[in-house]
Order: sequence, then C-alpha cells, then structure tokens
Amino acid sequence: MIPAPFLLYLGRSADALGIKTSRGLAEFRREDCVGEFRHDDCPQTLGLARLTMAEAAARGARTLVLGIAGAGGKLPDELIEDAATALNAGMNVAAGLHERLRDQPRLASLAREHGLKLFDVRDPPPDLSVGKGYPRAGRRLLTVGTDCSVGKMYATLALTQALRERGVRADFRATGQTGILIAGEGVPVDAVVADFISGAIEQLSPAREDDGWDLIEGQGSLFHPSFAGVSLGLLHGAQPEALVLCHEPGRAHMRGIPGRSLPDLAECLDRNLEAARLTSPSVRAVGICLNTSAMERDAALRLCARAEDQLGLPCTDPIAFGVETIIDRLLCPAPFALSTTASS
Amino acid sequence: MIPAPFLLYLGRSADALGIKTSRGLAEFRREDCVGEFRHDDCPQTLGLARLTMAEAAARGARTLVLGIAGAGGKLPDELIEDAATALNAGMNVAAGLHERLRDQPRLASLAREHGLKLFDVRDPPPDLSVGKGYPRAGRRLLTVGTDCSVGKMYATLALTQALRERGVRADFRATGQTGILIAGEGVPVDAVVADFISGAIEQLSPAREDDGWDLIEGQGSLFHPSFAGVSLGLLHGAQPEALVLCHEPGRAHMRGIPGRSLPDLAECLDRNLEAARLTSPSVRAVGICLNTSAMERDAALRLCARAEDQLGLPCTDPIAFGVETIIDRLLCPAPFALSTTASS
Repeated sequence: MIPAPFLLYLGRSADALGIKTSRGLAEFRREDCVGEFRHDDCPQTLGLARLTMAEAAARGARTLVLGIAGAGGKLPDELIEDAATALNAGMNVAAGLHERLRDQPRLASLAREHGLKLFDVRDPPPDLSVGKGYPRAGRRLLTVGTDCSVGKMYATLALTQALRERGVRADFRATGQTGILIAGEGVPVDAVVADFISGAIEQLSPAREDDGWDLIEGQGSLFHPSFAGVSLGLLHGAQPEALVLCHEPGRAHMRGIPGRSLPDLAECLDRNLEAARLTSPSVRAVGICLNTSAMERDAALRLCARAEDQLGLPCTDPIAFGVETIIDRLLCPAPFALSTTASS
Repeated sequence: MIPAPFLLYLGRSADALGIKTSRGLAEFRREDCVGEFRHDDCPQTLGLARLTMAEAAARGARTLVLGIAGAGGKLPDELIEDAATALNAGMNVAAGLHERLRDQPRLASLAREHGLKLFDVRDPPPDLSVGKGYPRAGRRLLTVGTDCSVGKMYATLALTQALRERGVRADFRATGQTGILIAGEGVPVDAVVADFISGAIEQLSPAREDDGWDLIEGQGSLFHPSFAGVSLGLLHGAQPEALVLCHEPGRAHMRGIPGRSLPDLAECLDRNLEAARLTSPSVRAVGICLNTSAMERDAALRLCARAEDQLGLPCTDPIAFGVETIIDRLLCPAPFALSTTASS
C-alpha cells in the first residue's frame, strides 16, 4: 500500500484532463491529501494548499503522487527533477506512467539512499493468463465511453457508492492508475501485454456467488484509434450483465486526435452491446452518464432529458445529479423478465 | 538476424496447430532447415530428417528453433531441458514465447559459457508510440480471421508472392513469431503493451509512396474472447484498403475454447469491415482464404465455389489453388469507380 497522506503533483499542466489522477485523489480521498504542488505557471488548482516539497513533508505528507499523464505515459525530465526533490525532502514517490520511476537511475539511487520507496502503479500483475470467456457467476457492470477521460471512473465510483447505500454489496474494480490509487488495488489494463487484456479483467473480477456487484471501470473507447483494442478486450473480459455509457458533451475531438469527432451516443452504445454479446449474450444497457461539469445546470438537465428520450435509458451527470435513476434501472428485472411476469 | 540453418523443434506435440512456427519455417524457408527434433512419442513430422541435437549440430545447424506454442506462451520445463541440450551441442536457441529464454538462469549461463545466443523473437520494439489513426499514404491489405491459426500468415505470404509475380512491389509485414522468423523482421503484436497495439502496427507499416503494397499478417479474431483486443488494435493500426478473410472449415470450436463455435463468415467479415472503417473509411473486402488442407480436393473446390456465391467474393485455398482470383479483385478498381466509369 502507498503511504498516505499525499502531496498531489500538478507540475505545469495546463490540461484539465492531464491532471486527472491528481484530481481523482483530491475528489475521492481528499482526507488523505495535504496539498498540491504546482509550478508558478501552472494555471490549474485542486483547491488544496499550494505547498513546496519541503512544506508538504513538514506537514506530514508521506508520498508525492505524480498524478499527471500524457498519451503514451512518458516521464519527462522535469518530472524526474521534481521527484528527486521530493525524495530529498523525505517523501516516497508514486506514479502511474508507462515509463517506470524505478528505471530512472537517479531516482532509484536517491530512494535507496533515503530509505524511501518508488511506487509504479502501472505495473501489471506478474502471472496473467489469457481470457477464456467461459460464463462465470456474479453480477457485473462495466462503464464504457465515447472517448477516453469522459468520466468512466467517476461514474463507476458513484454507482458503487449508490448501490452500497441501498444495502447492496458492491465493489469498485479499478483498471487505471487513478482508480488503482483510489481503491488501493486493481489492474492497469492498458499496461498488460496485449495477449492478456481480457484475461487480466477475468482475474480482476472473478466469479462471485454472494449476489453482490462488481462495478468495473472502463477504459478508452471502441471508437478511439489509439486504444480500442484495450476497450474491446476489457469488454470481453468483464462479461458484463449491464453497461453504462459515459460521455462528455461538447468535446471538440477525440482525446489526443485533433480532427476526429466523437461517435454518436446511440451508435457507440450499439457497438458496445454487439461486442459485449460475445461473452455476455444477455447484456443490457442501463444508463448514460454525462460529464456536464462545463455546462450550466439547467442546460445540463435539459441535455440529460433529451438523451433519455432519444435513447430510452436513464441519463444523468453522476456528480451533479446522482445515479439513482440508473440504480433503479439496474436493480429492476430486465424487460423480458417483466413481460413474462405480466403475462403469467 | 538469427543464424541459419535451423533445427526445428517438435518436442512431444500432438497438436497440429501447436507446431505452427516450426511448420511455417519448414514451408517457407525449407532450404534453411537441416532437420527436425522430436521425442519418441511425438506423432507429428514435417518430413525433414529426424535428428538428435548432436547430429543436427554435426550437420551444420546453427540454431534450434523452439517453434511450438501453447496459449499464453509459457516455457515448460522440458523445453528448457531440450534447449540446454542444444546449447551444449553448440547451437543457438530461438523462441517466440511470452516467457523469455534469457530469463531462464540455466539457459542464460549456458549460452554465456558456450559463446552462443538466445533469441527471444517475441520481444516488442522498445520505443512504441500510441496509434493515431491519421490517414497515411500507401496501399495496405490485412488478413483477418474467424479464429486464431486459420492460415492468415500463409495467405498473406501467398498474396505477397503473387503480387510480386505480377510485377507489383509488395512487402510482407509480420506480426507473429512465425512470420517474424520467416521474414527476419516484424512486430510481435500480441506481446506489446496493450496501449500500443495500433501504434505498433502504424510503425510496422508506415506511409509509403511507391505504389507498392504492404501485406499485413493478421492475428486472432474479433470473435475470439482471448485475443479480440489484439485483433481490433491491429485492424485500426493497419488502416487497410483491403481485407481478406481467412477461415478453416470444419474446425470444431474456437482455438483453445471448447464449446465456443466459430462465427459465420458473412457476420465475421461485416464486423471486421465495420470496425476497420474507423481508420479506413473506404475499406473493402477482396477475398476469402480457406485452409482446406484436411479436405478432399473436390470437396474443397465445391466449398470455395459455394462461399464465392454466398459472399460475392473470390474464395480460394491459397496453398492448394493459388490466389490469382483475389489478386484480380485486389488490383481492379473498386466497384464504385467501375460504375462511375460505366456511366460516364
């Protein structure tokens, strides 16, 4: 386990999506965050105290979390520099990038010298098997998306919490660096060897017999030309009974791909359902989650209402409006079962 | 490069698909193969001289190729034992499994001791980037399949050869261990980190401006619950102008998944075309390749004729009947262009 409390790194990031790991911790483990570290030209804040490395260590921070990411997960020189400063100030360092902290000789030697640890959250489990797609017991929901970084993790966490509040056993299954840092465990599915994508998810969410739900965090999008393979393997491995489609209205183009527009919601949902049937023939959609954080409340409510009408599914912003309508749909029997009951 | 000539390993394999790497080398680089190594209870042969390690070394074999594979690419104890014998006899050892030869202390130390090399063909390139799906120049054909091991590599090699015989520039782009051993280069796509599947293929088959074709070896199947993620990323990265669907008639179930039947040809082709359009909007199917090696010739011809009628595409067994009909379709303008010409 990564020792809390944390200092959250923002660096110089001007990209709201680029700091999503730091933001996720600030949202879902705020009690474990003593402050944020940002350079003078960083236009973003998480609303935490801005601290230097030394100040954070003095206030008890035990780990600097390099909670920023670009496509490809590279580790730029400045991050290494700042991580070194944190180690010299007496903090461990955690990151979830493809390039590993421990592969940086300077950081490895500083950590040894100070008796501190480097945590590479994106290390996949060592003994993965290929997925098989055999039917397995348990109730599973997967969030899927029109794009990367549209709120799948937030939606999954909100759904998990809402189920628990209704007295239903529910576990969040993390598949990305932020989710893993929040949950304390999980599988960084985009970092496993390609042959093992679906197998990694079968291992993350094994058969369960207690009537509880596994809520599996989706990744990427079937429509994203960089990452669709990850999304498809995750979908097959998850073998979900229920899908929730996540989307951020108004996004100009697919994440990292200027000029490529996002898919239509209905088409995106259909393609996910079609692909999911390979391992879960009776999969059904139970809701739509929109990230409306950039919109006025009234406009957001109107947009949700319109999507509900168009798609025939509950539609909400999980943070702004909660997920009760989706939970209602999830826990009510499937339409087929209802009509059977009605006619008997 | 891996030093030829080779001794091809069959071990104790009773599984025709399990020795496909050894068979591929015996088929496509037979002049470089001095013999085969098999244990007494191995029911299979490639028709090469059966040799002990010492006999092979005496006949000039420079590398033992461990050309067998099971799902997951594990390295069983007996393979390590036999590899050690080969090193002691003076041969290098090559393998394409997920478990690496160099990670076996005994093999690593024997290789050092004898001044020999261990070749892990499944090592992905070190500096991959994520795919972008931006339109790129060049003509590309990808083979796709109803299942793993249905003849995609054979079909791709046959198509490459046939194009060259017509005077068209054509290059085989290998994506699996067997193809890489045959071609001497390539990317083992199922071994790359999941985030980089499509990017690895964009790198394998970059833009080309010489009117030549890249013929990209497909992997797995969109309908295989273990490997569909690899297949989808490969499809997006390949950005193919043309698809050829490969299939082995009569297979009882999906490779490695007893009880799971193969998809219908038309449905499989439709789903591949639909998914390919994400990065190649005008992709078209140009043919079907059936592996009829287990059938009588007449029955095979009838089956091809029936598939042609049903799917409206040239259908052939590339080894038994050649690929001329598919090349004709590939090199003739697309139907839309034809009808435009006709009406003008």
